[in-house]
Amino acid sequence: MAPIRAIVFDLYGTLYDVHSVAARCESYFPGQGAELSRRWRQKQLEYTWLRSLMGQYRDFEQATLEALVYSCKQLGLALSDEQRAALCEEYLRLAPFPEVPATLKTLNEKGLRLAILSNGSVNSIATVVRNSGLQAQFAELISVDAVQIFKPDMRVYGLAEQRMKLDRSEILFVSSNAWDATGASYYGYRTCWINRSGQNFEELGRTPDFVAEDLRGLVGVCGG
Amino acid sequence: MAPIRAIVFDLYGTLYDVHSVAARCESYFPGQGAELSRRWRQKQLEYTWLRSLMGQYRDFEQATLEALVYSCKQLGLALSDEQRAALCEEYLRLAPFPEVPATLKTLNEKGLRLAILSNGSVNSIATVVRNSGLQAQFAELISVDAVQIFKPDMRVYGLAEQRMKLDRSEILFVSSNAWDATGASYYGYRTCWINRSGQNFEELGRTPDFVAEDLRGLVGVCGG
Repeated sequence: MAPIRAIVFDLYGTLYDVHSVAARCESYFPGQGAELSRRWRQKQLEYTWLRSLMGQYRDFEQATLEALVYSCKQLGLALSDEQRAALCEEYLRLAPFPEVPATLKTLNEKGLRLAILSNGSVNSIATVVRNSGLQAQFAELISVDAVQIFKPDMRVYGLAEQRMKLDRSEILFVSSNAWDATGASYYGYRTCWINRSGQNFEELGRTPDFVAEDLRGLVGVCGG
Repeated sequence: MAPIRAIVFDLYGTLYDVHSVAARCESYFPGQGAELSRRWRQKQLEYTWLRSLMGQYRDFEQATLEALVYSCKQLGLALSDEQRAALCEEYLRLAPFPEVPATLKTLNEKGLRLAILSNGSVNSIATVVRNSGLQAQFAELISVDAVQIFKPDMRVYGLAEQRMKLDRSEILFVSSNAWDATGASYYGYRTCWINRSGQNFEELGRTPDFVAEDLRGLVGVCGG
């Protein structure tokens, strides 16, 4: 089996904690922040899948906005224009999970090339990474925007192989989203599922090659 | 605008009540039937979208089974092989909503051609319709199986136009699933959203042409 030469990471929920958005939700809607945040995230994913299948791609920021509007209506929350803008802005200021900065540094020191492959727009990915000071850690920041469709369409996974100029057998794909790891596995990458909260893997006919509780588990996976 | 000559119905949740499955869930897992049924339905839809995007179509019965297995694991419910089979069987014995039989008869008497366009397999659709005694009401029962992908891919909506031998402008598409009505609208059908429980329509860039609380609203929509 080919040695792993590069690691391609999902961004939202894998390197960066999307539920840090919940605090801002809670400040606007006391007692409902967690529920709004949860529904917003679920609907955001649904809208990416539905728009992809309908051939009606708009960028991730649009899906995020529309999902927020829907989720607030569903919960009966009156959302002002200012609140809407501020909540969507939060997606540009996500915090990395605590172990992420040091682990990325260690993986780079081992000679691995690191990249992000994300549903986010080119601008969103760059902004999130820059705001967290991690831009030096990545060889490539790859957005689905280049193929105008979202994960888990196979064309998205193909982007990483093309941009990294490696064969898929040399790439490890890392996601905390089980459905995303499944898509990458069907494409032909080896996969590591980051299972931070003791979830069950999706029942979609594939299992990940590796499972870790957080990013530190990758250091062992990628050998000496 | 062309007169409406045919009505194409979604099956699950539109003509037939998928939550009648909840009673069987409750009998196996007292106190958790409603929650299991809700999660199962949500996951079933997710799996149809994800498999479609991954190019990994399996029939609806497979998605239903896999979604049940996942949902039980997630809730910590031990599901025996017998229970699993019996719960999936329930999807073949769904009850139509109360107003459905009489309304279909009225629409037929007005000279409209009626059809079903469903994610279900050919066999499942035929079984559900026959078990409810409504087979004489439909000119066509159309399964996504012919195109090996699920709603809301545009190829699915195209099937109805082809099988009914009508132009899309002559077809009214009816669904209680807002995302399904949205897909049909993008394809070019006029749409009626059946909103039985006071939901909000999805924020996906389209609105339905008509909204009704149940199927009886169609009688007025389709004129004298």
